[in-house]
Amino acid sequence: MNFSEHWLSRRAALTPNRIAIHTAETSLTFAELLKETTAIAEKLSSLSLDPAKPVALMIRNSLDGVFLIHALQQLAIPALMVNHRLSAAEWKFQLQDSHTQLLIVDDVFDEKVNSLKNELSVYTIGAVEQLNNTFVNSSLYDAADREVCSIMYTSGTTGRPKAVAQTYANHFFSAMGSALNLGMDVEDTWLCAVPLFHISGYSILMRSVIYGNSIRLYEQFDEEKIHDDIEYGRATMISVVTTMLLRLLAVRNGKPYHKSFRCMLLGGGPAAPHIIEECFEAGIPVFQTYGMTETASQFATLSPEDSRRKIGSAGKPLFTSEISIVNTYGDRCKANEVGEITVKGPNVTPGYLNHPEANETSFKEGWFYTGDIGYLDDEGFLFVLDRRSDLIISGGENIYPAEIEAVLTKHPAILEAGVVGKDDPSWGQVPVAFIVLEKGFSFNSDDYNAFCKESMAGYKVPKVFYVIDKLPRNASNKLLRRELKKRVMNE
Amino acid sequence: MNFSEHWLSRRAALTPNRIAIHTAETSLTFAELLKETTAIAEKLSSLSLDPAKPVALMIRNSLDGVFLIHALQQLAIPALMVNHRLSAAEWKFQLQDSHTQLLIVDDVFDEKVNSLKNELSVYTIGAVEQLNNTFVNSSLYDAADREVCSIMYTSGTTGRPKAVAQTYANHFFSAMGSALNLGMDVEDTWLCAVPLFHISGYSILMRSVIYGNSIRLYEQFDEEKIHDDIEYGRATMISVVTTMLLRLLAVRNGKPYHKSFRCMLLGGGPAAPHIIEECFEAGIPVFQTYGMTETASQFATLSPEDSRRKIGSAGKPLFTSEISIVNTYGDRCKANEVGEITVKGPNVTPGYLNHPEANETSFKEGWFYTGDIGYLDDEGFLFVLDRRSDLIISGGENIYPAEIEAVLTKHPAILEAGVVGKDDPSWGQVPVAFIVLEKGFSFNSDDYNAFCKESMAGYKVPKVFYVIDKLPRNASNKLLRRELKKRVMNE
Repeated sequence: MNFSEHWLSRRAALTPNRIAIHTAETSLTFAELLKETTAIAEKLSSLSLDPAKPVALMIRNSLDGVFLIHALQQLAIPALMVNHRLSAAEWKFQLQDSHTQLLIVDDVFDEKVNSLKNELSVYTIGAVEQLNNTFVNSSLYDAADREVCSIMYTSGTTGRPKAVAQTYANHFFSAMGSALNLGMDVEDTWLCAVPLFHISGYSILMRSVIYGNSIRLYEQFDEEKIHDDIEYGRATMISVVTTMLLRLLAVRNGKPYHKSFRCMLLGGGPAAPHIIEECFEAGIPVFQTYGMTETASQFATLSPEDSRRKIGSAGKPLFTSEISIVNTYGDRCKANEVGEITVKGPNVTPGYLNHPEANETSFKEGWFYTGDIGYLDDEGFLFVLDRRSDLIISGGENIYPAEIEAVLTKHPAILEAGVVGKDDPSWGQVPVAFIVLEKGFSFNSDDYNAFCKESMAGYKVPKVFYVIDKLPRNASNKLLRRELKKRVMNE
Repeated sequence: MNFSEHWLSRRAALTPNRIAIHTAETSLTFAELLKETTAIAEKLSSLSLDPAKPVALMIRNSLDGVFLIHALQQLAIPALMVNHRLSAAEWKFQLQDSHTQLLIVDDVFDEKVNSLKNELSVYTIGAVEQLNNTFVNSSLYDAADREVCSIMYTSGTTGRPKAVAQTYANHFFSAMGSALNLGMDVEDTWLCAVPLFHISGYSILMRSVIYGNSIRLYEQFDEEKIHDDIEYGRATMISVVTTMLLRLLAVRNGKPYHKSFRCMLLGGGPAAPHIIEECFEAGIPVFQTYGMTETASQFATLSPEDSRRKIGSAGKPLFTSEISIVNTYGDRCKANEVGEITVKGPNVTPGYLNHPEANETSFKEGWFYTGDIGYLDDEGFLFVLDRRSDLIISGGENIYPAEIEAVLTKHPAILEAGVVGKDDPSWGQVPVAFIVLEKGFSFNSDDYNAFCKESMAGYKVPKVFYVIDKLPRNASNKLLRRELKKRVMNE
């Protein structure tokens, strides 16, 4: 499959008058969205950008952000989606590692990126709007399906962040797989309160353009307003993480949701059984899902009719996706046998950019090795037991222990560190650290805290530091995080 | 995209208990359909078939036929779908031209194919059922997306039938394009009363497996029963040609159709405005569509909301499809400018089998030249003015004048012949022939009729023969069928 036309242009040609996007202030049809997008693409054209190098976006969930995303697609330039909650050290690494040619930031982030302006071309959205318009020859558009559309960084077992390339085909098949499972209706409106810089949010934009459905865009999660939208039929689907679902449940008024509301898509790790039970009692159609940046969002999804019978499961793979559980010998596991979750399908990334060694480890014979542990039961339902390398999911954000440990051991007082997740009523989990002190140093929690904040996003900074004499390790000196996890649970 | 699993197996794993198919006698779930299909695949396996050569199916719209279609997919063997209405000479040509290794026929067609049994391996469905079961190693299944799934013959401008290869990818994207336009609902049931050997029927089977929706299969079109199905909510979508639509309208009882009925997909040429008007008055959601064997069904479809405003249009191309109108100089036409309709998209056939010269003529720079004439208006709606080479569409069957003319001129009394379509209230059109007699012969309509019946399907035999002195031709001696057409219209 090759697309020789920009998706938004195609959509605007097919259904120009349907509403593409609602925000708190306004609504735009697909024709209007294309017009705004083209204006931005024309301004960016004046910069003579290189289509082979990414343009990074550090944006909030705003209309301007949406225009930029579509404009980069119109120019067939990959968009590096930067998490603005990251520390300067973190996003600087991403910009460098990805060979970003230009950074565009929301005006509010202008100061934040000041230090970078000597090294890289940086524009605020306001500055982009001041550029001259240059004609975009859309007949030259040529984003083959294998071309990179978006880039998002993720850390794996090593803790070193890697750029995940998401192609146009990845996004297309992700949207198709989702539709084949959830159905597709002209009247659907997908509420987007998850960040556009995460695959959960970005994929909502893509589905909107492919399906011809509306989005209701939120700058941030606001349970009161979102509850109203759902209650009054202004949203038929929403993507949430457990934290958001809990906040929505907390503001319920006993009335059922609007009958048109048909999907609460719950990602970011399995939800506690009592939450599923509560949703069931309230008639809320919760679809639990398993997916990751590398699979361009959902890969397996559990339908509400199976939610209670298969509590803890992430459902079955989507139609075009395959899941295989592999044991330590590399053999395919039988039903109910635990092993590493490997996945295959047209929505799986072709690989990490500029990381051949990671690709070699992660891809074998067309299968992507997720590093996650789980099993398929005898009906083919997936159960995820452990996210890769003790991944910590906190309020929908992925936190990789190895990444935090690497920072901590740079502190002069810290010899070794082990980081694990601790259950938390509002965030699902929060990171906590076990540290072994260098000789002659005494414990100073505030110091470690400040040290961390310099080089990582706030949500990654360990909430508690525990001093221990020695980290638990196995014979080959591998850190046994599950032992640390036991201690946390015994607290 | 590659599928490493048989689609029906995948569907049965995902939604085993949904109803896959309803017939007059029974209903089968996807799990049951897979079980029956696998049994047939196991029997066929005992024949040690060559996966590179087609197996031909001459079947009616029956459960057995459906099992065979899926069984061949399970074995990754291309299925040549033979129109059983064709004459022996016609289907013998197809079997030979396609290098068919085995012909399986409905038991009722056993006698019909008797003469062939010395040349080719022929089994009735009954005989297949007597074969021994042999294990099908489904882990060896490997139908890559570019592999040929089905083959259907079509005649083009030359009148020589050519095998159209339809890949798995063609069928997948056809289903996706349709869904992106018509929507997709778990509760949908698609009524199939069009032949499974035509792309209109075959594609209903594919959509069922991909969407996880039910089919209601009719052995033949029965307007009374089908009307009841639609009235009582037993079908939400149906594929029809004009003849069928007229017969359905004739049995209406004034009551509206069931509210769940959402799509009357009308193919086989544009419908007369008064029919569209009648549907509109009756609240029948008619979607007029343009497609062909080479595009694995629908390529453009007109939504009911545009039906009246754009009378005569076939709508806009589906999301993954592109249409370009090309003038005689090979340049792209402007809006409203008439030219040849060329199409591009992942549902377009990779080409004609064993006909490199036809492929060279029909494919240029990724575009398929349909031979049809039409234009796009300034909103992008397609208007088809003339089907290729004066294609005659009679009750949903395509009739190619050149094919009939070639037969007629073999008759000793006939020097030259020209065939055109004549409007007909029940069939849309019927073929009629203009003939120039050899010297010394006198006109004998019955004789020509009998002669035709020996070598062509009954629906292709001209309904009237007109003797004329000379056929109208242009300077380069090309037959001017439009002149003949004028005479017919003046009759």
